[in-house]
Amino acid sequence: MTDKNEFQPKWRETEPKRGSFRSIFKYGDPKGFKHPNRRLFEELKSTFNLTDEDFRKKETTGDELVDVKIDSNLSTDQILEFKKIVGEENISLKEYDRLKFSSGQTLEEHMKLRRQLVGTISDLVVHPRKKSEVQEIVNYCNVNKIPVYVYGGGSSVNFGVYPEKGGVTLVLSTHMNKVIEVNETNQTVRVEAGIMGPHLENILNNAKSNFDTSKNFTCGHFPQSFEYSTVGGWIVTLGSGQQSSYYGDAADLVLGVEVVTPTGIIKTYDFPATATGPKVLDVFKGSEGTFGIVIEVIWKIYRFMPENRKYFGFIFKNWESAVNASREISQGEFGLPAVFRISDPEETHHGLKLYGIEGTAFDKLMKFRGYKPMERCLFIGTSDGAASFTKNVKQQVKKVARKNGGMYLTSFPAKKWEPGRYRDPYLKEDLMDFGILIDTLETSVKWDNLHEVHQKVREFIKSRPQTICLTHASHFYVQGTNLYFIFIIKESDLKAYRKFQKSVIEKIEESGGTLSHHHGVGKMAGYLMEKHLGKKQMEVLRALKKHFDPNNIMNPGGQLGL
Amino acid sequence: MTDKNEFQPKWRETEPKRGSFRSIFKYGDPKGFKHPNRRLFEELKSTFNLTDEDFRKKETTGDELVDVKIDSNLSTDQILEFKKIVGEENISLKEYDRLKFSSGQTLEEHMKLRRQLVGTISDLVVHPRKKSEVQEIVNYCNVNKIPVYVYGGGSSVNFGVYPEKGGVTLVLSTHMNKVIEVNETNQTVRVEAGIMGPHLENILNNAKSNFDTSKNFTCGHFPQSFEYSTVGGWIVTLGSGQQSSYYGDAADLVLGVEVVTPTGIIKTYDFPATATGPKVLDVFKGSEGTFGIVIEVIWKIYRFMPENRKYFGFIFKNWESAVNASREISQGEFGLPAVFRISDPEETHHGLKLYGIEGTAFDKLMKFRGYKPMERCLFIGTSDGAASFTKNVKQQVKKVARKNGGMYLTSFPAKKWEPGRYRDPYLKEDLMDFGILIDTLETSVKWDNLHEVHQKVREFIKSRPQTICLTHASHFYVQGTNLYFIFIIKESDLKAYRKFQKSVIEKIEESGGTLSHHHGVGKMAGYLMEKHLGKKQMEVLRALKKHFDPNNIMNPGGQLGL
Repeated sequence: MTDKNEFQPKWRETEPKRGSFRSIFKYGDPKGFKHPNRRLFEELKSTFNLTDEDFRKKETTGDELVDVKIDSNLSTDQILEFKKIVGEENISLKEYDRLKFSSGQTLEEHMKLRRQLVGTISDLVVHPRKKSEVQEIVNYCNVNKIPVYVYGGGSSVNFGVYPEKGGVTLVLSTHMNKVIEVNETNQTVRVEAGIMGPHLENILNNAKSNFDTSKNFTCGHFPQSFEYSTVGGWIVTLGSGQQSSYYGDAADLVLGVEVVTPTGIIKTYDFPATATGPKVLDVFKGSEGTFGIVIEVIWKIYRFMPENRKYFGFIFKNWESAVNASREISQGEFGLPAVFRISDPEETHHGLKLYGIEGTAFDKLMKFRGYKPMERCLFIGTSDGAASFTKNVKQQVKKVARKNGGMYLTSFPAKKWEPGRYRDPYLKEDLMDFGILIDTLETSVKWDNLHEVHQKVREFIKSRPQTICLTHASHFYVQGTNLYFIFIIKESDLKAYRKFQKSVIEKIEESGGTLSHHHGVGKMAGYLMEKHLGKKQMEVLRALKKHFDPNNIMNPGGQLGL
Repeated sequence: MTDKNEFQPKWRETEPKRGSFRSIFKYGDPKGFKHPNRRLFEELKSTFNLTDEDFRKKETTGDELVDVKIDSNLSTDQILEFKKIVGEENISLKEYDRLKFSSGQTLEEHMKLRRQLVGTISDLVVHPRKKSEVQEIVNYCNVNKIPVYVYGGGSSVNFGVYPEKGGVTLVLSTHMNKVIEVNETNQTVRVEAGIMGPHLENILNNAKSNFDTSKNFTCGHFPQSFEYSTVGGWIVTLGSGQQSSYYGDAADLVLGVEVVTPTGIIKTYDFPATATGPKVLDVFKGSEGTFGIVIEVIWKIYRFMPENRKYFGFIFKNWESAVNASREISQGEFGLPAVFRISDPEETHHGLKLYGIEGTAFDKLMKFRGYKPMERCLFIGTSDGAASFTKNVKQQVKKVARKNGGMYLTSFPAKKWEPGRYRDPYLKEDLMDFGILIDTLETSVKWDNLHEVHQKVREFIKSRPQTICLTHASHFYVQGTNLYFIFIIKESDLKAYRKFQKSVIEKIEESGGTLSHHHGVGKMAGYLMEKHLGKKQMEVLRALKKHFDPNNIMNPGGQLGL
């Protein structure tokens, strides 16, 4: 018999086999792992009435090799055309590749791939090298009515890359991933849209040596998917980074785009402001690949001054105090924190475990002072900017927190959180090996409906037996914030999972939240768009769709409800 | 013989006669006046080689009564329909009213009205009282193909309200001017779009007593036309206020709109962010009445904290230093000033006269320290926000200014500037009485083309003999700013004036500036839109136009180049 305190499930530590299903659905770095810590593991066992025994045998692993035979629907002549455009080495008809670039990061896709269930896949994977190739491909597809899907980093959580209608998938991140110019004077960077976060950020952080600038810069946009998402993807899905309260969302950070559409190439200006009619740039923000392909981007950059960053953390007596303090900070006009994140009681409960605070002297002090488990709420934050600015933000945040009954936790929790900021998605695969699902759904709220949306959605999620529901708000505006729901369930039945997940989305919408704050809509929630926005707004999107893509070749199949 | 030092032209001090042309073109408050001071007067005489004698007799005054007979092109039945919708007291067929509400604030209109030249005027003026009336009118006009123009505050400087095709003019500011709700929690205000600046600001500044809120608020938007422009107008022309560097432009401040279009009513959400596809709200920003009529607006508001406002002013050795300092401030990440304004050498020369600084001890000190007339550049600013924030902004601005060779001028010039901030347009009429024209054209630039645009446009303006050209930048962004050109000429010939003005606009566009930073495009620069934005972007605007207004009844006749 194993000592209970010593048992540790065999969390996966090896990279997926080449050619396996797991190598397709595994998130991020093939050699990157994040395991549940002991406290989380114990919590999961107790929630789901599991024993160590249940963690001895993995339910699904997806280690099987992709060994399916699916014919491409493209003719030999058509395939030849693509070959001519990009060269033989940049197309692939292999089922593995076609499946890989047809897959995103929804749990449903993971569950299917673990079970070797393969649905529609791309008819051809194409890796274009430059604008003229993208243009030729789009023109050819438009004439021949071949659907075009775009794959950037593949981190879509709503079937954004899923080729519902087959056709070709263009992988933009393979070649079209360069920094073209750093403009220090204007503080902008011009990039090819397929560039991923770390590549861009690394170049900017070292702009002095890379581009002979007098300062180093930062891109300001750090979504959880940072490591495996592209600048183009950030823009067309309306992404939001973990420091958005200070730097703004992707929609604020993009200054200009060049887009290949079936109707032609559109290049917008990059003036910081102009009163020359409705901005065409704006209609591409959130267009999710349905109007065209963003191939080049002018992006705002900011000074890289990590030496000025301040960290802070607080514990509040309850959710209401944490929300009140956050609102006061957001509306306080002393500048906004960069990282700015409050966790509801259940998430705080897990957060204190994850950040190693539970059981420490801090924890004892908190309890002694009346910050009770499953009531107390964690707030973590940082401030970016000039030294005088970050210092003042921290001082003022402390004042507001204290006024709302918050206890200062030093910089410790924020510093504990920071290094693992992009790692949470890695947890998913360990748990799913044992049939435990972690999924996230998120929405945006105004201050005056935050509590209603939180309560109703949480109540609904918790009405499912043995369900963990963690919620945080992490993108703050003067007028409101977002709510990010994480639910953890033990579920092996795909249909049952889908039904539950769908009901949560619908509950969010019914409760008065938006369909998404920063994940986008995709093909998952597309069917709710008309209900959510109303017929009249949808007609505008359809008119734009018709203009850019009269033959409906761009990301067809329900994306955005179009 | 009059003592030269005592002669003062008889600047107009009486309000225009009721029913006169002057009562139509006179800007703003009928009893409001601003006269050139002695120093400016002397400067004008010397520039234009005039003597006191030339200021004894006014050239045109427009004091004649509007006594024209212009038939309405609407049929009696049609007029009856409008009467039914809004009531007899809310329509007018009188030529005076039809002319008045067909007129904006371009110099061309002023010159014509002074000469009793009347072009196309509205066929009927209608003052709708509520949404359902606007809706009925638009529906009726759509079916009967009657052009619809909207008049808000009438301060358009590019023929935005000019009814090129006749039809009806809806005056939105007569009745549809209420504050509907102040939402303290979300920090938003819901208003009818016809509300003017002072009315809104006054209600917000006194929200505690008006709406029982715990704080007072400000609308954050203070264009020079503040007193005679409407919230709806701010949005559809992409306006920018004098404190925009801190509060943002109108496009940033609007959160939601309700718009009556020929295709139906569209109401957008008012979430601070949402990732649910391209935002329909965005396409109405800058739509200049060509898609529909904005009737209701959710507007962001900020805390009213005048007690925290800091004032500062500097003189720089030259334009380049002033620009460099401004860029460093804009990119410094310590928070932006609210008022933020730099004047080029020629404007500084006049500014120092206007603010009463010329000839003072300050002036002597400046000269002593090497800040030379016609080289030196004035910078004035304020900071808004929390006390700790405004204090820090001022401190940091001082540091940057000093580093760039700026001499601190205390709060004096900014405080001198502030009370007259909305009054400059009043100067126009005094000077035009004597055939002197002041006109303004503006553009937006990036930091890296600011100097080129400034030099080329200024050179062009100055190539006209006896022409004063003052330039400032007053709306700052991390990536650039605007340039606001004021030219003063002695010109009585309408055609010559138009030719010159048109050439300046074209020069701005050719030099790499946008057609407008915050005045909009109107029917004046509409013809340049396709050249400026390119065919592909114009096609997008045309597709939207076609969707919202298939019969082209909304502000037809070249507005926005549509």
